[in-house]
Amino acid sequence: MGEFELIARYFTRPTARAVLGVGDDCALLQPAPGTQLAISSDMLVEGRHFFSDVDPGALGHKALAVNLSDLAACGATPLAFTLALALPRADDAWLTPFSRGLFALADAHGCELVGGDTTQGPLNICITVFGEVPVIHGKSQALLRSGAKVADEVYVSGTLGDARLALETMRGTITLPAEMLAQARQRLEQPTPRVALGQALRGVATAAIDVSDGLLGDLRHILQASAVGATIDTSIAIHLIAACDRPDWSTGIISLEKQLDCVLAGGDDYELLFTAPVSARAAVQAASRLAHTPVTRIGRIDLEPGLRLIDSQGNALPRSFPSFDHFA
Amino acid sequence: MGEFELIARYFTRPTARAVLGVGDDCALLQPAPGTQLAISSDMLVEGRHFFSDVDPGALGHKALAVNLSDLAACGATPLAFTLALALPRADDAWLTPFSRGLFALADAHGCELVGGDTTQGPLNICITVFGEVPVIHGKSQALLRSGAKVADEVYVSGTLGDARLALETMRGTITLPAEMLAQARQRLEQPTPRVALGQALRGVATAAIDVSDGLLGDLRHILQASAVGATIDTSIAIHLIAACDRPDWSTGIISLEKQLDCVLAGGDDYELLFTAPVSARAAVQAASRLAHTPVTRIGRIDLEPGLRLIDSQGNALPRSFPSFDHFA
Repeated sequence: MGEFELIARYFTRPTARAVLGVGDDCALLQPAPGTQLAISSDMLVEGRHFFSDVDPGALGHKALAVNLSDLAACGATPLAFTLALALPRADDAWLTPFSRGLFALADAHGCELVGGDTTQGPLNICITVFGEVPVIHGKSQALLRSGAKVADEVYVSGTLGDARLALETMRGTITLPAEMLAQARQRLEQPTPRVALGQALRGVATAAIDVSDGLLGDLRHILQASAVGATIDTSIAIHLIAACDRPDWSTGIISLEKQLDCVLAGGDDYELLFTAPVSARAAVQAASRLAHTPVTRIGRIDLEPGLRLIDSQGNALPRSFPSFDHFA
Repeated sequence: MGEFELIARYFTRPTARAVLGVGDDCALLQPAPGTQLAISSDMLVEGRHFFSDVDPGALGHKALAVNLSDLAACGATPLAFTLALALPRADDAWLTPFSRGLFALADAHGCELVGGDTTQGPLNICITVFGEVPVIHGKSQALLRSGAKVADEVYVSGTLGDARLALETMRGTITLPAEMLAQARQRLEQPTPRVALGQALRGVATAAIDVSDGLLGDLRHILQASAVGATIDTSIAIHLIAACDRPDWSTGIISLEKQLDCVLAGGDDYELLFTAPVSARAAVQAASRLAHTPVTRIGRIDLEPGLRLIDSQGNALPRSFPSFDHFA
């Protein structure tokens, strides 16, 4: 199978919204009048972002999911994506499930494949995704990291830390019962981008980011961009780990300290972390219901720079939590 | 040096035209009203697209050049690009010249870096580039592969085959004098995307493609997309190889057969191959002068499907030429 047959067989589909899709030198998009185009690019590398024996269908899902998660964090509506793929060989047993997993998620979000590249090389998946953000009365509705204000409240969607539990189990540093691992592994390998929530939070949230490197590390990006500080209530956050939230599972299997590690600094969660004023509490709940996505209020934005972790009594936690860094 | 410091140090620069550049979950572009966005993505892999000892500055240039060449083939005006980079390690001695070569070409074309990704992994460079194409009276001015008409003439810009001469010399299959190799190697490692010519050909050319896999292979894409055939005069094409166009060099060093191989099926040329009606000959020459880029008329489009190679007497050449394929 040659390069062009590979593209034709697995990655060429009709486009409904793009002016021109796969098959020419460029794809052509015509953004709706009065909108901005949101763009994000993520590269997944074997051994770094996924294990070499990962299910190709799950990998196709995840490669697009991490990009859609960036659109979600921006409040953008998905439009289209490009896929650049380096493969050791053109293998139908890999390409068929990979493209199925990819297109299942793409179709669920109306996000069209419009172009890309394929080449021989160590497995590497690079997706660039495009979304639309409205501009209303001259003001972009994009959610940025830089909009958090003092006294805003800090929210996070869904659950946190399960992906890290799965990762550590697969690395052999902890042991989980099979059923608990299956649930956690689903979060690691097939994350759900919070696209509907991101759009519902336009005009409600003051700042947003998606949690990819870990809650605290990603919160720091908001704090730096907004020039503020924050306090996080760890007695609330500790309950965000789904696999440990069943009393029959959690007792004694994973220490509370490890649970907090996973929640605060786990990474690979792809939940939305955002801020909103106290006056917007009802609007945040309405967005949560509209998007069928639970959200939890876990802290507040402070004038004082830095990040403070407190327990249920309001006392400071003495620990620090490193965040994920690809080159650290 | 961590991931965020690496991005801040080498790849964060102010943007003039993008609404939002590097540093948030997404970049934001606001295309001008009445324009379409042209998008192309290319992935370069060590050992496949470049030798591991290539000058990093030249590599930075080439990684963007091959993408700008796709915009050129579409007649698009460059706007912005994203860069996803997998690196074995964060090495200043590589990153400094790489980013310099990249930005020198980007600045020359007013093309802004607006986002991307960096990760640890086998060296892989994936750039996605964005350009603007006007829509006039409801008609997109993009140059497509599908517009060639019977009796159109076939043109190619600049010179062809030198990149392949350099590649074969570096692989040891042929031997070139040092001065001749230096000239050819410049073409292989620092190709010039024909961006100005592409824009000048809007409304003039009927179809266009950039020559990356070899003249004949890329011409076949136009023929398939346009459902036509073509005849190419090899007695003209043979003169397109620049390194062999100096009488003092060419005699006896490289056989005429090898020269024709390089011209017709060499690859890595990044010239524009395009078609235009006979009535547009003066307009093609005007576009060539405007863009300071020579063009040569090498053949014509036929009703009869397929690709015919003829000599100066109009006789068919009996040879066939394979085109480059990443998985063949």
